[in-house]
Amino acid sequence: MNKRVLSTKDRLIRSAANLFRVRGYHGVGLNDLLAHANAPKGSLYHHFPDGKPDLAKAAAVWASDEMLRLIAVSFEEAKTFEDGMTTLCHKLAKLFDLAGRWDGCPISSTLFEGPDNEDFRACAEQLFNGWIAEGAEAAERLGDAPDEARRKSERMFIMVQGGWTLARARRSSDVLRELPRLLT
Amino acid sequence: MNKRVLSTKDRLIRSAANLFRVRGYHGVGLNDLLAHANAPKGSLYHHFPDGKPDLAKAAAVWASDEMLRLIAVSFEEAKTFEDGMTTLCHKLAKLFDLAGRWDGCPISSTLFEGPDNEDFRACAEQLFNGWIAEGAEAAERLGDAPDEARRKSERMFIMVQGGWTLARARRSSDVLRELPRLLT
Repeated sequence: MNKRVLSTKDRLIRSAANLFRVRGYHGVGLNDLLAHANAPKGSLYHHFPDGKPDLAKAAAVWASDEMLRLIAVSFEEAKTFEDGMTTLCHKLAKLFDLAGRWDGCPISSTLFEGPDNEDFRACAEQLFNGWIAEGAEAAERLGDAPDEARRKSERMFIMVQGGWTLARARRSSDVLRELPRLLT
Repeated sequence: MNKRVLSTKDRLIRSAANLFRVRGYHGVGLNDLLAHANAPKGSLYHHFPDGKPDLAKAAAVWASDEMLRLIAVSFEEAKTFEDGMTTLCHKLAKLFDLAGRWDGCPISSTLFEGPDNEDFRACAEQLFNGWIAEGAEAAERLGDAPDEARRKSERMFIMVQGGWTLARARRSSDVLRELPRLLT
């Protein structure tokens, strides 16, 4: 979809997701956000009455939905869980390269403010659990019992999170491509 | 060592390490830092001429050295790499609980500002590579060939990073304790 046809609300959400994942929640000012989204200040509080924290949660949910789709499409034609994980890791490596190798996890970068913001933490937990549930469903469909499916999916989540952190520090998507090999 | 006998410089470094890992580099203001360290403003620029970024790197190095010691002590009496990793994961779980389950990785929380700060990224890469080298040395000592030692240590690093992120989102140290089980 062409960026010009997005609603102001959608532009705000995408700009927030893109900026927070590079510089973190506190590293992005409201003015930068509005300029990036080409949106007037009034529009922010119209769509997100609580302002920046509301927008951050919406941005994290949007990015999380993209990740759910990425997991689904990676496992769609997989013959085994390992196949699906390999496809997912290659897709993530491509995304990482497209983003210039600077992006962090859109949830981790956005929704951690410590004990001052239990609301953010609870939102992050819910979104992460959603990714793990999506992977576990795929594993069950491919023949694993529920416990084993959950174990495999949780391991995949942990490897992708940790791998992304190392890839970002090294600015190298190879870390992501090699994750499945680390498990053999 | 009693906190009262620490030098002002050491107090600044420890306060920075403790505050950044909870709220991130941008989430902590200089005034909060100085108050937490009980240090006058002049002392910050005396010890860290470039101010907050300098202090952040010193804090990350300090926290990284603690991690290097934790890896070393975990593998000191280990009979196998898996034993050492299990000990390390249990020690990290204890630390996580002591910190109230809010801390992030001291490097990831502190040294990522995107393309605006390549210096931070390079420092993070160097520190992470140090952790991986420490683990690989342990694996070699326990009998692995260099390539396999490196592979095991990189996998441990990735599992610990990703596991810590999930533990933080869930506020549960069990994720860390169960990491070795995920690899069996």
